[in-house]
Amino acid sequence: MKSIGVFDSGVGGLTVTRELIRQLPCENIVYFGDTARVPYGIKSKETVIRFSIENILFLLKQDVKLICVACNTVSSFALPVIKSHFRVPIVGVISPGVREAVYATQNKRIGVIGTKGTIKSHTYETEIRHLDPKIKVTAAACPLFVPFAEEGFLSGNVVLEVARKYLKPLKDAHVDTVILGCTHYPLLKAVIREALGNNITLIDSAKQVAIEVKNILDAEGLLNNKGRRAGRHRFYVSDNPEWFSGLAERFLGQPVRNVKRVNNV
Amino acid sequence: MKSIGVFDSGVGGLTVTRELIRQLPCENIVYFGDTARVPYGIKSKETVIRFSIENILFLLKQDVKLICVACNTVSSFALPVIKSHFRVPIVGVISPGVREAVYATQNKRIGVIGTKGTIKSHTYETEIRHLDPKIKVTAAACPLFVPFAEEGFLSGNVVLEVARKYLKPLKDAHVDTVILGCTHYPLLKAVIREALGNNITLIDSAKQVAIEVKNILDAEGLLNNKGRRAGRHRFYVSDNPEWFSGLAERFLGQPVRNVKRVNNV
Repeated sequence: MKSIGVFDSGVGGLTVTRELIRQLPCENIVYFGDTARVPYGIKSKETVIRFSIENILFLLKQDVKLICVACNTVSSFALPVIKSHFRVPIVGVISPGVREAVYATQNKRIGVIGTKGTIKSHTYETEIRHLDPKIKVTAAACPLFVPFAEEGFLSGNVVLEVARKYLKPLKDAHVDTVILGCTHYPLLKAVIREALGNNITLIDSAKQVAIEVKNILDAEGLLNNKGRRAGRHRFYVSDNPEWFSGLAERFLGQPVRNVKRVNNV
Repeated sequence: MKSIGVFDSGVGGLTVTRELIRQLPCENIVYFGDTARVPYGIKSKETVIRFSIENILFLLKQDVKLICVACNTVSSFALPVIKSHFRVPIVGVISPGVREAVYATQNKRIGVIGTKGTIKSHTYETEIRHLDPKIKVTAAACPLFVPFAEEGFLSGNVVLEVARKYLKPLKDAHVDTVILGCTHYPLLKAVIREALGNNITLIDSAKQVAIEVKNILDAEGLLNNKGRRAGRHRFYVSDNPEWFSGLAERFLGQPVRNVKRVNNV
């Protein structure tokens, strides 16, 4: 049985994988984390595209039927290029989050937070305005959120003070909806909510991404939802399987065993 | 005129380069920052060795007479291997700092702080005990210090609270000397001092590294200290020259122009 391939620069994509497992329990999943070159968020478009192509070539060798790009930086920089290169269906994390946010906003003011790369790419603004040109988008890079999530600083004064600083432009712009434009950020939901106030809708695109994956597999006749056994989940990294395993439970919601190290270049 | 080659995973090595320029103003310097794969601090020994060899091969093509490994993680993991592979003299940042710390301590209690990789390698403890087995070493990884230094969080509540948390074991152990075992940490000297108290000696190995480079070049008859013109300084990176330039002044103490992007693999 063919698998769903998922890749990310490191552990962040596990928050998307968690939702894929929840919605598609019978599917096999192959996850690849490029931990030798993590993080991608500060790297250039050309470099992110090059790394992504190498990651996809590795996944294709694992006999995948669809590839989910579980990383906002890759989705922002590389999606059009990689979609044009490969025949396998490829799903990114931007469009699903955008659709949900455009649907959710009442006052037509949406905030977007992400890595420096994602924010600099303006992909979210472009996609939002494509759906509704009247929406005002306020974007902010939150570069310390990824190290905070990985180091377990998920609450407390330190992360709240930094969150208030990063999110001030969004608060000043009176956004009513905020897209968590990085797969690490769902771990910081509580503190982001504390900094922004309770009446803000936070969009974690993982749920919509899984729905899109399901729809595409269904349309292509590739969906496996009739099995009685749970799907098999395999995890590969390009470096440091111990580091990955140590963080995996926090991001996936369950422990990960047998992480295999492979060379993807 | 042959150059001194310097490499690091990113911008941190510029704090060492700053001291090289101060002590050896006539020398040409070629700096390489592996910004496509930065940071190295969370990566495995094997991967750090592989990346280091690729970086050295790039520098050798630039006609260098000595290579300075301006990165504690590389010096901890890779120095014995790369010294055995290459004929060019290679200077790391560990031994110079160790010698100064062993000389400085009065109560024979030394603290060491660095990346996860550096601390996990136990290289500092091994080298300190080799010089004086009676010295008690307390080591602590400070993984958020690199992102803080790069994001400009050099003072204030956020960084002080995290510093107090990381440095508590050193304070509890009553160390009188602390080695800043990462080339980013000199930027956080003030806050580290605030967390530890004023009577602590902080060892920034850059000065001793530059002395060692000078001594080796002198011994090999390669020292250029008689020129009337200032040396030429070239900067190469594997990605994102704008990101590097933007941070360089903070780390080097002077702006860096003409950063060239090259492919080192």
